[in-house]
Amino acid sequence: MIVSSTSTALDRLRREVLAANLDIVARGLVLYTFGNASGIDRANNLVVIKPSGVPYEKLQAEDLPVFTIDGKHVDGEFKPSSDLATHLHLYREFPGIGGVVHTHSEYATAWAQAGRAIPAYGTTHADYFHGPVPVTAPLSDEEIEGEYVLNTGIAITRIFSGRDPLATPAALVAGHAPFVWGRTPHEAAHNAVVLESVARMAFLTVTLNQACEGVSQGLLDRHYFRKHGAKATYGQ
Amino acid sequence: MIVSSTSTALDRLRREVLAANLDIVARGLVLYTFGNASGIDRANNLVVIKPSGVPYEKLQAEDLPVFTIDGKHVDGEFKPSSDLATHLHLYREFPGIGGVVHTHSEYATAWAQAGRAIPAYGTTHADYFHGPVPVTAPLSDEEIEGEYVLNTGIAITRIFSGRDPLATPAALVAGHAPFVWGRTPHEAAHNAVVLESVARMAFLTVTLNQACEGVSQGLLDRHYFRKHGAKATYGQ
Amino acid sequence: MIVSSTSTALDRLRREVLAANLDIVARGLVLYTFGNASGIDRANNLVVIKPSGVPYEKLQAEDLPVFTIDGKHVDGEFKPSSDLATHLHLYREFPGIGGVVHTHSEYATAWAQAGRAIPAYGTTHADYFHGPVPVTAPLSDEEIEGEYVLNTGIAITRIFSGRDPLATPAALVAGHAPFVWGRTPHEAAHNAVVLESVARMAFLTVTLNQACEGVSQGLLDRHYFRKHGAKATYGQ
Amino acid sequence: MIVSSTSTALDRLRREVLAANLDIVARGLVLYTFGNASGIDRANNLVVIKPSGVPYEKLQAEDLPVFTIDGKHVDGEFKPSSDLATHLHLYREFPGIGGVVHTHSEYATAWAQAGRAIPAYGTTHADYFHGPVPVTAPLSDEEIEGEYVLNTGIAITRIFSGRDPLATPAALVAGHAPFVWGRTPHEAAHNAVVLESVARMAFLTVTLNQACEGVSQGLLDRHYFRKHGAKATYGQ
Repeated sequence: MIVSSTSTALDRLRREVLAANLDIVARGLVLYTFGNASGIDRANNLVVIKPSGVPYEKLQAEDLPVFTIDGKHVDGEFKPSSDLATHLHLYREFPGIGGVVHTHSEYATAWAQAGRAIPAYGTTHADYFHGPVPVTAPLSDEEIEGEYVLNTGIAITRIFSGRDPLATPAALVAGHAPFVWGRTPHEAAHNAVVLESVARMAFLTVTLNQACEGVSQGLLDRHYFRKHGAKATYGQ
Repeated sequence: MIVSSTSTALDRLRREVLAANLDIVARGLVLYTFGNASGIDRANNLVVIKPSGVPYEKLQAEDLPVFTIDGKHVDGEFKPSSDLATHLHLYREFPGIGGVVHTHSEYATAWAQAGRAIPAYGTTHADYFHGPVPVTAPLSDEEIEGEYVLNTGIAITRIFSGRDPLATPAALVAGHAPFVWGRTPHEAAHNAVVLESVARMAFLTVTLNQACEGVSQGLLDRHYFRKHGAKATYGQ
Repeated sequence: MIVSSTSTALDRLRREVLAANLDIVARGLVLYTFGNASGIDRANNLVVIKPSGVPYEKLQAEDLPVFTIDGKHVDGEFKPSSDLATHLHLYREFPGIGGVVHTHSEYATAWAQAGRAIPAYGTTHADYFHGPVPVTAPLSDEEIEGEYVLNTGIAITRIFSGRDPLATPAALVAGHAPFVWGRTPHEAAHNAVVLESVARMAFLTVTLNQACEGVSQGLLDRHYFRKHGAKATYGQ
Repeated sequence: MIVSSTSTALDRLRREVLAANLDIVARGLVLYTFGNASGIDRANNLVVIKPSGVPYEKLQAEDLPVFTIDGKHVDGEFKPSSDLATHLHLYREFPGIGGVVHTHSEYATAWAQAGRAIPAYGTTHADYFHGPVPVTAPLSDEEIEGEYVLNTGIAITRIFSGRDPLATPAALVAGHAPFVWGRTPHEAAHNAVVLESVARMAFLTVTLNQACEGVSQGLLDRHYFRKHGAKATYGQ
């Protein structure tokens, strides 16, 4: 049973997750239904995610299915996005995150398909990602034949071992596409939009200069910390 | 004479084919009138296709000319698309298909012009095409001087010998452009849109990694069969 | 003095030239005012052209200045496009053309800047251009210091010596951008739009296949002659 | 205290700077808030700049903060763009300029990230930039750890030593993005839009022809001086 305070929080989360799903469409990251955003209510460990294959223009907040962080269905009549198990794994392993976004945005996906991390070539990157956006190893046949969607999440968290996932809130799944996260669903969607622009500029940069070494650690730190952490000076 | 039940089915087919023609325009695949969609009524072996050179904004369902699968004119006062003979050949040879779409969408056309099949570089591809999107051999001078449009269709079906055309519902005609199909005109148009996105990402991928080997057979199978066949788990 | 029958023809020509100028803007070929279209009344040898530096949104048909084919000012208070002398030279040397369009559309301009002709890589090209779109030699210092704008036209007509300008209705001026023509201002604008798409696909094609040989002469002829000449079968 | 004649000039300047900020958004140069435009009232040495992190759709002219050319806050409750010190340095060192624009527009930024100047490959470039658009040296660790934003401006003015900044009104900051200027905020924004188009065409050109030598000095001079200086013949 969902008590009413949970229900109010859930309603709000559903609206936030719906907004994040619509945002990645409006920003041109999504062809047809190739993308999904989710969010978590950490107080109750409940995850809201886009349903599978429902056209965006018909999505209503109350359509979004709800699951416990361990994958038990709680509410909503639609089937969840087929990527649910990846999202849930990220929420379990990255306790600081509140939203996850997955898209097949074209430039970030191209880097994932090429099996290459996106180097930190400039300050746009450094403002959001404190180092290269990493790429997973290709999944083995066993991982693909087994719990494939869960194993996709495991491939991501494996490369973040010992690293702060909020310092570099994105990963490329080799041969697949990016997963992006943030403190909220809104921030995850925002980071996914920036990732696509960063991926596009990195594609152009490496075409112009195959040997480009990217920004120095000093510049990476300067830009990252002016937007993040205790000494941030950005915005109002 | 067209009996009234056929007529009702034809009316519906004409509206579906019109919608598919407008869809490929709305999705940005068509410059001026460089594209055409058709559909078949299998019960009566009647094919509806876009007329030649009529501006899309003026197209009405009843303008769409109707032919038998063998090319006999049945209804409609406009001349058919100049690619009619290719469409008809595909309907005769691929009995499972219900719609055909031809465009000069720019990235898919570039692969066709380069004479290269589009490798299966990622899961977006694998969700729709169970292996590379093949490219035909260049047509010989005899094929070009003879029944060129029919021979274009024959070049396509030749490379599908022994293969399921619905498992990889597209082909690139060398030096020309893609032909795409599906169970319905709507699905053919949808597949044409996805092909262009896949072609764009493949262009970026191979630029980033000339030696990219693409997805494993296991990943290709996993993604393809979760959307197709008896064990499909996708959508609602 | 302009007699009234000339005046009526001029009014119509001005509207056609205005429409061609607006068309290349609507099709995305023009940044700010970097483009111009003109047309000629062959009966009276009068040329109408876009004025220099007037914002498109304020252009009225009656604003378009009128010149004789030899460059004498006839009507209109605005200064003509700074490329007038190139247009006039093309009208004098290519008696079959009725409209000229010049843009800095980005892909065609890139080929011009690279000093490369656009090879006939596919049937989209062959439907409009019966062979490569040629590029001029770079202008010499003398040509630049002298009557530069006229010399730009001479560089174009020099490479069409002995060729039919309507069979390949475009040229790239090295280090500059394309000039495109047609039987009417409308057709010139249409050809400029197709040229940009062809240039974009050729860029992608050569990136995918540096050694691409392009279409055979047989395919070039087949596509060209089905849209042009006495045996054309295209359209209604 | 701001006397009323200053106030009227400031009001006008604020509207001009707001318009320039909105212009670079409307022209597609700005993702989220990654860009800023400023302007200077030379009579009073007052600089107006975009506030930091305020969404464009909410910006009002009176929100724009005002500073003396030496960085003393004069008016406006919002914090200035974090790039203020770069803008102020440019105004101090380039006395002929009246507006500065900074964006992360994708092609110009790619050249900056690649550490390459944009060569003068064609006449579009020559109409606006009288030679290559230069790129700074990478900032040293000391410059980054010190007054980073000011040092960014110093890196720019260092490469303009002995050159006329209005003859080539833009620079690429290595590993960062372009700064562009002009006689007014409007002209700076216009130049930033042209720079992005020039950067895009230069990317395509060098991909088509790695050895491209660009336009001759004669062509560079011809195009530049027909739009600039005492003998300009362009426009009405």
